[in-house]
Amino acid sequence: MTATLAALTNDQVRLAARPTGLPKASDWQHTSEAVAEPAEGGLVVKTLMLSLDPAMRGWMSEGKSYIPPVGIGDVMRGGGIGVVIASKHPTIAVGDTVSGGLGVQEYATFQGDQAKRAGIVKIDLRLGTASQWLNVLGMPGMTAYFGLLDVGQPRVGDTVVVSGAAGAVGQTVGQLGKIKGCRVVGIAGGPAKCRWVVDELGFDACIDYKAGAPQGAPGRDAVRDGLKEHCPDGVDVYFDNVGGEILDAVLARLKRKARIVICGAISQYNNTTPVQGPKNYLSLLVNRARMEGMVVFDYADRYHVAITELGSYLRDGRMKSREDIVEGGVAAFPDTLLKLFAGANFGKLVLKVADA
Amino acid sequence: MTATLAALTNDQVRLAARPTGLPKASDWQHTSEAVAEPAEGGLVVKTLMLSLDPAMRGWMSEGKSYIPPVGIGDVMRGGGIGVVIASKHPTIAVGDTVSGGLGVQEYATFQGDQAKRAGIVKIDLRLGTASQWLNVLGMPGMTAYFGLLDVGQPRVGDTVVVSGAAGAVGQTVGQLGKIKGCRVVGIAGGPAKCRWVVDELGFDACIDYKAGAPQGAPGRDAVRDGLKEHCPDGVDVYFDNVGGEILDAVLARLKRKARIVICGAISQYNNTTPVQGPKNYLSLLVNRARMEGMVVFDYADRYHVAITELGSYLRDGRMKSREDIVEGGVAAFPDTLLKLFAGANFGKLVLKVADA
Repeated sequence: MTATLAALTNDQVRLAARPTGLPKASDWQHTSEAVAEPAEGGLVVKTLMLSLDPAMRGWMSEGKSYIPPVGIGDVMRGGGIGVVIASKHPTIAVGDTVSGGLGVQEYATFQGDQAKRAGIVKIDLRLGTASQWLNVLGMPGMTAYFGLLDVGQPRVGDTVVVSGAAGAVGQTVGQLGKIKGCRVVGIAGGPAKCRWVVDELGFDACIDYKAGAPQGAPGRDAVRDGLKEHCPDGVDVYFDNVGGEILDAVLARLKRKARIVICGAISQYNNTTPVQGPKNYLSLLVNRARMEGMVVFDYADRYHVAITELGSYLRDGRMKSREDIVEGGVAAFPDTLLKLFAGANFGKLVLKVADA
Repeated sequence: MTATLAALTNDQVRLAARPTGLPKASDWQHTSEAVAEPAEGGLVVKTLMLSLDPAMRGWMSEGKSYIPPVGIGDVMRGGGIGVVIASKHPTIAVGDTVSGGLGVQEYATFQGDQAKRAGIVKIDLRLGTASQWLNVLGMPGMTAYFGLLDVGQPRVGDTVVVSGAAGAVGQTVGQLGKIKGCRVVGIAGGPAKCRWVVDELGFDACIDYKAGAPQGAPGRDAVRDGLKEHCPDGVDVYFDNVGGEILDAVLARLKRKARIVICGAISQYNNTTPVQGPKNYLSLLVNRARMEGMVVFDYADRYHVAITELGSYLRDGRMKSREDIVEGGVAAFPDTLLKLFAGANFGKLVLKVADA
């Protein structure tokens, strides 16, 4: 098997410069290199699909965060699904489908303990499709599960609001909220996403933050009015993926002892000005509420619990998933990433790199 | 005893208008009226001391809060200590010293269940002086006790930072933190307060937020540099009384799983512009930290626990208290209140109204 590796070239996308604002073409470098042979204990994975995530923007910047930034000149960090095409690994064999940190490249060779450090694990395609393993059964699903249940602590009958409702994390947060007996209100951009969230995923309502708003800006009044209409008694749990004006609008409608899960702030990631702080944060005082941040990696030792539970909901049809799969291979990565920040993806954004 | 009431006049301070920014003279009305006789079950209290609190500014404004605003034309709400001079109450007798919502007036007559609703309770001057009953044993002490212990949840060895360290709440937060085995760093305005906090109260350090700053503005660099020096490993618990730039500076130095107690935001109470939201709030995400609001009234059924514990520390000398007692009676209330917002008080601000 490894005899054929020499014939392959590995197209890659590397970080060329730290972006200011939205990443642009010159922030990336496209390279090709030979596929390295695995040494004893190593393996080679052919990338099938890559996950595109808002967090990637943070990994491109300097500054203290929960993970070091990608180095200039390094292959861009990225999670994906692949198939093992060469292996001298003790437990992962040629033909196995795996998930983990493959990077934005066509082939990933892991030597020594690199596969372990990249979180390469075998996945079972009977539990979900490859793209579902990047969505409900992957990091977005894990984030939704532990963020909602551990940090948000919803109780039966609670009103749960989630922003980015049609996105990767939001779709699972909302459906899981419904399964746990909550009233769920989504916030998403545009009527198509809002309809899907309500009609297909079963949310109780969805607020179109773009309604009546100038191009690109969240419609402050739309969100405020929507929350008033759909959460007349206030919000118990807010799962925030976006920050900015929407966070402020929800803060203004908290119930007593409300919990805000700070999962992300996509509206702020490409700022060239300072982050917009929530000016309604004193609502936390008035309502004895809390706002708490979470990072999914902290729950790694319980991923199997979440995968088992979420997989069962996928199987019995109580949970649906939607992936926005872009064709085009690794060369399309830079343009595809921008879809996220424009809110142009509909469902979990995935880049298809190769057929199985 | 009640025969003499008719001879007394009751000077009062009433809210005349809702202030914009700092309260000014025309926002107040000074009135005098006869002291009403108590009906069956009622009582009359002669005010000895009144508590002046940052929260009073909030009570003067419209808008949803944890308590309705003071009505225009009403006697200004305020807690105080007084002595009962007339009583037809079943359990409170003439000569008893009481604490509760007396209002900014020389005499308070309570009829029916008004005394109960105003939280009028007998106090024991063997546990603390009258002014200590407005400080460590009063609402500031209760706020410090439950805010730090219940919301902040400090553990032995934790680094606790408290702003307004020489103020009413801050002085008790810091001393209680030390008693509970924490390292405590205060933030206060000016070298005299900082010295007192360290030398007299036993804080480990105190940062002078006014150092190197233009008049009135917090010295952003002073706080940032001070936190770096005195909290080299970061902050586990931050008890925030001030908001604004100082909150942002502490957010930038949080440790993993840090807890921020939002008790107040005195820097923002007289804003004529929107509240300054904490632009470093995403530090909550990076550090898996939380920010939680508290209102002391929620803990009313446990005040006796806090009073017993804090009273024992006062008695054995492990806790000190400082009150800034202003003479001048109720007429001096409007000017005295402004001392709070200028940070000009040194210790718990109390207005003396009459001798016992």
